Amino acid sequence: MFELDPAFLATSEALPGLALCEARLQLDARFPWIVLIPRIGRAFELEDLSVEERAMLIAEIVVAGEAVRAVGAALGRPVEKLNVGQLGNVTRQLHVHVVGRRQDDPCWPGPVWGQGAAEAYAADALEMALAAAAEVLES
Amino acid sequence: MFELDPAFLATSEALPGLALCEARLQLDARFPWIVLIPRIGRAFELEDLSVEERAMLIAEIVVAGEAVRAVGAALGRPVEKLNVGQLGNVTRQLHVHVVGRRQDDPCWPGPVWGQGAAEAYAADALEMALAAAAEVLES
Repeated sequence: MFELDPAFLATSEALPGLALCEARLQLDARFPWIVLIPRIGRAFELEDLSVEERAMLIAEIVVAGEAVRAVGAALGRPVEKLNVGQLGNVTRQLHVHVVGRRQDDPCWPGPVWGQGAAEAYAADALEMALAAAAEVLES
Repeated sequence: MFELDPAFLATSEALPGLALCEARLQLDARFPWIVLIPRIGRAFELEDLSVEERAMLIAEIVVAGEAVRAVGAALGRPVEKLNVGQLGNVTRQLHVHVVGRRQDDPCWPGPVWGQGAAEAYAADALEMALAAAAEVLES
């Protein structure tokens, strides 16, 4: 039985879900960033998914990448590289980060995880980001 | 036409390949760590793979995770968590890191990429690591 870890609620905002995963916009204006959480109870590693769920997950990672690119474009900062990470060292529930990177972002070329503090979105930018992501995720 | 980026040669050692990917042991004794490189020319993002190749890749990521666990066990440091990352900010050729983590490793709970300097394997530990990984990858 799937229940979203409350840790995600504080750091991200809900987007339209996909067939397998919940999708959430990370509330960090430094990077266009979507977190995917498969709606599977007690999954911590990719090996905890079935073969079919694994294929669905990587398909949804690609869709999330398109949505991240759309967020970057909507905010006038086109994505130059996608970074995908499945760590779970802190929040154990299986989740995948899909992050849009640019050479002028504050962590380039290092990873974003655990680096510096999240920056809040301005209200209008957040609305634009959510709308741009939703348009891709719902298509 | 696929040609392995020479950047991988300096930092990793060849393991038995999988159906889609070259597999290489990262030469960093701090973590059991395998790098997968799909044998696809001019692929930089997951979206550059076909749907079938994406499904193969995630299946091979799970196999690499088993191999990473086998390396950790062989070296007396069982893996507690797998971390998977597809970044490519420095080396652009599409590749996926599969890293075995422990709470007592030098980067826990942060990511390993770009953190500190790689530590060389002792010759006997490297041999054991390569053998343990190969046994899983060839099975």
